Amino acid sequence: MSDHQTAPGRIMAAEMAEQPAVLRRILDEGAPKIRGIAAEIAARKPRFVLLTARGTSDNAALYAKYLIEILLGKPAGLTSMSTTTAYGAKPDLTDVLVITVSQSGGSPDLVASTKAAREAGAVTLAVTNNPDSPLAEVSEFHIDVLAGPEKALPATKTYTAELLALYLLVEGLRGGDGGAARELPALAAGVLARQAEVKALAERYRFAQRLVITSRGYGYPTAREAALKLMETTYIPATPFSGADLLHGPLAMVDNVSPVIAIVPDGKGGEALQPVLDRLRGRGADLVVVGQQAQVDAASAGFALPPGVPEEVQPILEILPLQLLAYEVTIARGQDPDAPRALAKVTETR
Amino acid sequence: MSDHQTAPGRIMAAEMAEQPAVLRRILDEGAPKIRGIAAEIAARKPRFVLLTARGTSDNAALYAKYLIEILLGKPAGLTSMSTTTAYGAKPDLTDVLVITVSQSGGSPDLVASTKAAREAGAVTLAVTNNPDSPLAEVSEFHIDVLAGPEKALPATKTYTAELLALYLLVEGLRGGDGGAARELPALAAGVLARQAEVKALAERYRFAQRLVITSRGYGYPTAREAALKLMETTYIPATPFSGADLLHGPLAMVDNVSPVIAIVPDGKGGEALQPVLDRLRGRGADLVVVGQQAQVDAASAGFALPPGVPEEVQPILEILPLQLLAYEVTIARGQDPDAPRALAKVTETR
Repeated sequence: MSDHQTAPGRIMAAEMAEQPAVLRRILDEGAPKIRGIAAEIAARKPRFVLLTARGTSDNAALYAKYLIEILLGKPAGLTSMSTTTAYGAKPDLTDVLVITVSQSGGSPDLVASTKAAREAGAVTLAVTNNPDSPLAEVSEFHIDVLAGPEKALPATKTYTAELLALYLLVEGLRGGDGGAARELPALAAGVLARQAEVKALAERYRFAQRLVITSRGYGYPTAREAALKLMETTYIPATPFSGADLLHGPLAMVDNVSPVIAIVPDGKGGEALQPVLDRLRGRGADLVVVGQQAQVDAASAGFALPPGVPEEVQPILEILPLQLLAYEVTIARGQDPDAPRALAKVTETR
Repeated sequence: MSDHQTAPGRIMAAEMAEQPAVLRRILDEGAPKIRGIAAEIAARKPRFVLLTARGTSDNAALYAKYLIEILLGKPAGLTSMSTTTAYGAKPDLTDVLVITVSQSGGSPDLVASTKAAREAGAVTLAVTNNPDSPLAEVSEFHIDVLAGPEKALPATKTYTAELLALYLLVEGLRGGDGGAARELPALAAGVLARQAEVKALAERYRFAQRLVITSRGYGYPTAREAALKLMETTYIPATPFSGADLLHGPLAMVDNVSPVIAIVPDGKGGEALQPVLDRLRGRGADLVVVGQQAQVDAASAGFALPPGVPEEVQPILEILPLQLLAYEVTIARGQDPDAPRALAKVTETR
């Protein structure tokens, strides 16, 4: 094999680069089917939504929770899976829509808890990257996120694919047209083309011992996913906090040697985060912002996102520079982003 | 003032020591009122439960979520507060019980979101340490956790008080007698009397740069609360993971310089955690266990909990050695547990 083929991070880099094409594919080929499924589910009139997932997909599920509460106006919760799989809880799930999100659709606990939910009366929907998976099999409905095979251990393209599929689902459930997503493929390509900016930013974290990542509202799932990506590739402990929770205790941990990354949504989430940013600046924190140019200018450094994107789909762009950051910091530390130690692609938890 | 009165951690130490008396007070004086409120709420036949809280109280709320799903068999979720307070979401909350947990009952976002929930048709219940608080005022029902004034910034006695009050509430909702809690005051006194053991354990973490804390099932809220307590007092980044999520990525972060604390419930949660413990031992992790003696013996070190306690109330004991650990590590590092930098007791997030 040539050096190029065996270079560390080759697979992750290729999969990150595919994201504009994957988003395009979902909008062109996936959207009609998602709309159809949404119409069928809406006809069943679910009153509550429960979301079940692990790892990266759990962060996609959290994004869907915000969409469901804000855009759809339905109460939603993330399931504590062990209540079913370890304790055998059998809640009555009449009128409940259970959405299970999983790249592989293969983890036994997700299959078992979805099967139990269906038996308990729930409408079940699997959102996966594998239509032939056991999870798709046991679910009443299935949405394929069409990301193509994902081989790098850190999930990237399946995360943004899950976000977009879930956005289109919620739009379908409320009779929206999903128009806010139309420009995302082109905008994503524009963001990914600026990898050199992220590489410069990565120097900052090469020797970091810890990181705090914060956001609010729609940006909070991005903070969690960025932390997970950084932890599993760089091994730096990266702790995500909603801005509000950060003020309720962990702020004590932030000082001038604990760098902070803030994802500042352009909209109400960003406004709600503002007092937290002020407190962090007041403590002399090294604050790097992913957000609009003006927010970046007011911070120590950052990555400016394109303006004018509706807040509810910003997470699909926000994560891109953070995926690149995880990649670049890992390379800078002499590790291989494709193969974090100790991990397997399909994690079989029970 | 004498040295004794101004010693670092004096207030936190005193409040931790009060816990057996607080638990006794809740069982003796609080339980009848909690039972009455539970009966009134049960008569309203809620179908879905949402829990709202921040910081330490959010970990108590997560414990209640497990109780509600497992013992009561109702679907439950933790609210993403910003959907209401920042985005103005107005979900239909008919048939929903909204439980808001807060030590002070004073944070404006909790008050606003509880008020909004009541207007949206929810049955609202505040669980606080302050019956005269704005939160108690706006809620239809109120449970006083009877912990007495809490002055140290790290919450300790209000956490265990919230846990016990929530356990008795769920027992009341399902017509149980709460008998599993009867021995807790005496058992808690026995655990707290073993502070010297924890002090010895604290030496291990004096120079730690990071900590991973894991558990499953009923023990998972304990892992989260232990991480929060350690972060806000010692400033060591302590990252909590459900055992299952740890295998889905962050395991890469664990090596022989990242100590792991595992809370191993005596029961199904502990059984579900076993494969995770095996993987951690296989990676040569420094594993400290809070759990039964046999589990401690199989680890690098640990703190043995009394046997024979029903799993659903074990969290009320599990957290005690971890509170003491946060205290002792903070003292060992020359800091004052009573006054973490940057924190205020009543955090006003909006």
